[in-house]
Amino acid sequence: MERVASPVDYTEDELGLVRFGADGLVPAIVQDAGDGTVLMLGYMDAEALRRTLGTGRSWFWSRSRGEYWCKGETSGDRQWVRSVHYDCDGDALLLVVDQDGNGACHTGARSCFYRSFGSDPSGPAGGSPARE
Amino acid sequence: MERVASPVDYTEDELGLVRFGADGLVPAIVQDAGDGTVLMLGYMDAEALRRTLGTGRSWFWSRSRGEYWCKGETSGDRQWVRSVHYDCDGDALLLVVDQDGNGACHTGARSCFYRSFGSDPSGPAGGSPARE
Repeated sequence: MERVASPVDYTEDELGLVRFGADGLVPAIVQDAGDGTVLMLGYMDAEALRRTLGTGRSWFWSRSRGEYWCKGETSGDRQWVRSVHYDCDGDALLLVVDQDGNGACHTGARSCFYRSFGSDPSGPAGGSPARE
Repeated sequence: MERVASPVDYTEDELGLVRFGADGLVPAIVQDAGDGTVLMLGYMDAEALRRTLGTGRSWFWSRSRGEYWCKGETSGDRQWVRSVHYDCDGDALLLVVDQDGNGACHTGARSCFYRSFGSDPSGPAGGSPARE
């Protein structure tokens, strides 16, 4: 399926409602638009958020690598942003996306949250534990 | 509907896989077990996580108030934890819950993520924008 990027409309007033932390970052939950699976959590600074809204692709700030990354640009597991929500306090974001490829996780699992307490922690199950 | 709390089994090895940040906290996404709506994002330290697993109710650390809180204990909008997941890096949690009452948000909205970029930001819609 060939997907296309759709930039998200936004105003500076809306951007002003987002409260970035002392480190300049805000957590961004990524949810599958199709079935609601929670795929991953990343972090955005103001520039990553602007890039996400402006391009319709998901951009994050990598805390470990200290650089911007566009999800799937190297792996092919791209995310096509359908809507971007901010919470009541403005200190968390929710991206609803169409997910390309196998999924969001670098392990090959569809969701990064493939492990749960009380289960066998031996490795990725590939499925979506949150929607069982 | 009368719901009951179900403690979540866990091992110390599993707890050891969770990587708390420099502030001792890890973000915890809360998702509705019924329809997959992302309800809120809170923060847990190790003690809040142990309380959550041990009681089957959602416990968080309030960064603004500097205290533990059990969701819904005063509002009645309780969360009954059905499973707790940790991500590939161990630095984010996902709680799947049955949500009591009107919802998770202190505004009266069902989800804290009731606002989205490009929409009218005037106030809570009460519904679940992530599952429209």
